[in-house]
Amino acid sequence: MIKLGILGGGQLGRMLLQEAANYPVETWVMENDETCPAATLCNHFIKGDIRDFNAVYAFGKQVDALTIEIENVNIEALEKLESEGSRIFPNTRALKIIKNKILQKEFYRDNNIPSAEFKIIQNRTELKAMADFLPAVQKLATGGYDGRGVMMLRKPADLENGFDDSSILEKMIPIQKELALIVAINQKGEPAVFPPVEMVFDPVLNLLDYQICPASLPEKTLWKAEAMALAVARNLKSPGLFAVELLVDPEGNVYVNETAPRVHNSGHHTIEAHYCSQFDMLIRIILGYPLGNTDAILPSVMLNVLGENGYQGEAIYEGLPEVLQIENAFVHLYGKKETRGGRKMGHVTILSKEKQDLLHQANKIKYMLKVKGTIKADQS
Amino acid sequence: MIKLGILGGGQLGRMLLQEAANYPVETWVMENDETCPAATLCNHFIKGDIRDFNAVYAFGKQVDALTIEIENVNIEALEKLESEGSRIFPNTRALKIIKNKILQKEFYRDNNIPSAEFKIIQNRTELKAMADFLPAVQKLATGGYDGRGVMMLRKPADLENGFDDSSILEKMIPIQKELALIVAINQKGEPAVFPPVEMVFDPVLNLLDYQICPASLPEKTLWKAEAMALAVARNLKSPGLFAVELLVDPEGNVYVNETAPRVHNSGHHTIEAHYCSQFDMLIRIILGYPLGNTDAILPSVMLNVLGENGYQGEAIYEGLPEVLQIENAFVHLYGKKETRGGRKMGHVTILSKEKQDLLHQANKIKYMLKVKGTIKADQS
Repeated sequence: MIKLGILGGGQLGRMLLQEAANYPVETWVMENDETCPAATLCNHFIKGDIRDFNAVYAFGKQVDALTIEIENVNIEALEKLESEGSRIFPNTRALKIIKNKILQKEFYRDNNIPSAEFKIIQNRTELKAMADFLPAVQKLATGGYDGRGVMMLRKPADLENGFDDSSILEKMIPIQKELALIVAINQKGEPAVFPPVEMVFDPVLNLLDYQICPASLPEKTLWKAEAMALAVARNLKSPGLFAVELLVDPEGNVYVNETAPRVHNSGHHTIEAHYCSQFDMLIRIILGYPLGNTDAILPSVMLNVLGENGYQGEAIYEGLPEVLQIENAFVHLYGKKETRGGRKMGHVTILSKEKQDLLHQANKIKYMLKVKGTIKADQS
Repeated sequence: MIKLGILGGGQLGRMLLQEAANYPVETWVMENDETCPAATLCNHFIKGDIRDFNAVYAFGKQVDALTIEIENVNIEALEKLESEGSRIFPNTRALKIIKNKILQKEFYRDNNIPSAEFKIIQNRTELKAMADFLPAVQKLATGGYDGRGVMMLRKPADLENGFDDSSILEKMIPIQKELALIVAINQKGEPAVFPPVEMVFDPVLNLLDYQICPASLPEKTLWKAEAMALAVARNLKSPGLFAVELLVDPEGNVYVNETAPRVHNSGHHTIEAHYCSQFDMLIRIILGYPLGNTDAILPSVMLNVLGENGYQGEAIYEGLPEVLQIENAFVHLYGKKETRGGRKMGHVTILSKEKQDLLHQANKIKYMLKVKGTIKADQS
């Protein structure tokens, strides 16, 4: 039986393990926190720092194949393992490109994949010379995650507050729609593309409210989006799963925003809504089985369940019975004991043939389900 | 967080744990075999004999609620735990009735639930006096499981080979169809009924070939079957999940064959094919959440993946890549390292609007997917 090692023990690892339980595979997880969501669903849990060379190298030597559920891993250890024959999903070449936003932007440019115009910035002095390039988005080259390490710079005065660090400055694209497409690449290099999802944001808080699948797009835009996501995944020249985030401007131009080389938040709906889920797909790729069917069984909406601002401590789920009463909703809580404002504590997927029903239920659930905590925290 | 204890660590426990991972619940499993399918998917695994009073009692004292995935548990320990306030799903009254086939048959009779006519037999001498009652089925009062402890007695000479033990003798019913219905009863006594599934048997080997959901039944038979399954579950006066097996004769009369007070093989299709699966439903009942939606998303067929006769040792899955290529098939393997002839090693569910497609794929998979073993065993 193949020994599969997962670096990172968050909810992505947890859901991967729920699916892995259907396959002949022995699962290993490494993560520093023994109470992490994935710790109790694997065959072997190893406490260790995924950023530490020795820990990752030793872990990699114990297993037959490795994957990640977060990019923030020790790449040098993975490179050594790979040079010694380890199979890593994604491979270290792809991971290195994506881990560094400068390399990632250069990758899009070098492969003629449309993406926002950009400048490479090394420090604030260089940044301050960029007034003509505004409005723009500054992104740290490394270390950014889940909205951190990103800053909107709209007017020259904003440049004073920009990052004084290695980063890219991207021209702001007038966004009509945000899409995400997941592309699977098997060990032979064959692809499978999941239908695009459309992100629906709260215009005030700039938070992802929910995502809907399939995205409602003119056919031409859909083809462009699929072709671009495929080009990204193919040119990374790595087996694995790739979540490609795309922006559509009012003229229907499509740009790649960024790519994650792993299972992704934007693919959670595939668990119930598609024949093959993103988690199932990654397991198939790693075990060398045929790619799964990415077709939707039904259209879906997915919304994240976030820790309510102003609370921390042990999670308290308000409105859960009410949501569980909704006939076409599927609730996933990630087993995180501690909540904090904005922390991803779970998600809910809704299935329906009717778009109006999807949106109606999503809005209802958004106001119904709250994750509070045992401790009232300072508003941050 | 509620601590849920599961007695038994087989595939039913495993699938229950895959679903429990979506809820705020801490899972405990007790089972003698540390390599059992459920051992690596729970928060706490306790090695112990579920038939042993002290082991079950100590385990029950560690958790807030208890359920079973096999009836073969120490009932005295559960009774003591229940008398001391433990919540057990099903309760011990229901479990005692079902564990003993004599009590089970008397329960149907006393509650006016149609079931095959029967005689209580204590030994072979009594059995031999039953020539006038043939053809009949003899079932051991206790200890029968998964086809064991059951004997067909068609002609007087067969009585010589019957069980010399406490048992029931049931008049053989001419079977036109075999159905199974799962009924969920929450802690308030409210029910939810899953649509009936129809068992399709191999007429030569008398093996379940596959089951199809929904069963194709005249409306009147459907109503009768639902009413009877509900009557069984309600009269057991216990929260939990109950799988009621029913027989339909050529005249359309419906009889209860037997009942399992737990998640059941006949409910596996609900994982993908229904909004709420049988496993989800049991977790909801135990945690006191609303009952889920039993509706089908799509019609389905489920077939068991059994260890091929003539093999034992480490399981080798033949034809798995071919089955994984089928666009509407969902494969579940149970992680059992050792195979043997007839052992339940996994199942496959197929979803389709078209009955012909369901049957076609089921037949294809049945011949494609074989579980062999590293050791050629004597044909038994």
